[in-house]
Amino acid sequence: MRDYIRTIVDFPHEGILFRDVTTLFADPRGFRMAVDRMLTPYLGGRIDKVAGLEARGFILGGAVAHQLGCGFVPIRKKGKLPAATISESYQLEYGEAVVEVHDDAIEPGETVLIVDDLLATGGTAEAGVRLMQRLGATILGCAFIVELPELGGRVKLETLGIDVRALCAFEGL
Amino acid sequence: MRDYIRTIVDFPHEGILFRDVTTLFADPRGFRMAVDRMLTPYLGGRIDKVAGLEARGFILGGAVAHQLGCGFVPIRKKGKLPAATISESYQLEYGEAVVEVHDDAIEPGETVLIVDDLLATGGTAEAGVRLMQRLGATILGCAFIVELPELGGRVKLETLGIDVRALCAFEGL
Repeated sequence: MRDYIRTIVDFPHEGILFRDVTTLFADPRGFRMAVDRMLTPYLGGRIDKVAGLEARGFILGGAVAHQLGCGFVPIRKKGKLPAATISESYQLEYGEAVVEVHDDAIEPGETVLIVDDLLATGGTAEAGVRLMQRLGATILGCAFIVELPELGGRVKLETLGIDVRALCAFEGL
Repeated sequence: MRDYIRTIVDFPHEGILFRDVTTLFADPRGFRMAVDRMLTPYLGGRIDKVAGLEARGFILGGAVAHQLGCGFVPIRKKGKLPAATISESYQLEYGEAVVEVHDDAIEPGETVLIVDDLLATGGTAEAGVRLMQRLGATILGCAFIVELPELGGRVKLETLGIDVRALCAFEGL
């Protein structure tokens, strides 16, 4: 899995090693393998919705939802969704950001899998978890392609009682 | 198909009827039907890549690419892609916007299907077509869920020799 992922030095700013999954998505075998491995642990149970985090989580989440035959819910940046929303903020390196979901996107009691490409500090995923919980969802887990263990995202989510899965990990930021 | 789509009045600004596909995506049958109808016309031929327009085109494009067993290429707003890109600008109601693609996202001669949720004026799709053509792609077509015929997007794309397909149309803006 790691071999399909490209590392870009100094993006989005100096000192960052950006793990670029577009090379994985562009490869037919890589993309299929990533989607299929991502959904395999959940095949036994009921999944009502896949929720994807904007924007790369949309690519994965759309494919996972279609393959599972369930609905897809976008968790978007502030101001992008047209109907009534609820929102959660989370900390960035400098300042904070807000994510939103339509307030009717989930029925209470529905089971939801949250999907994104990369787990770093877990701030966005945690905000997504809180949005889903406020709508009454039962969260089956958060699934990622890449995990950066040193940034503590897994611990943050597991502390909330969330099952966390990643297809591969990169040490070093 | 139209019954799954919600209309929001005055979003993003007054006088606009926004055709909201999130209700379609959230419905298991609706989402599956949309993706499957979108790819059916192309099942007979070779498709190397599905290119999705940010951001709702990622949801559809990911599902279409996975179902077809081909790669996915994101066409993104300016500054989001980490490696070397090429870019195209297009007119908005006020000002202009820029979309980009990685310059190695397509091999010359590859066949590409461009996907988005909605065809309005066709500005973004046309910019996407130009990006793909500059990389040497053969464009199989542009596929949308919704078309707004009065805004002229179909004519704009067909003038470029592009095959245009939409699953449904809404008259009136």
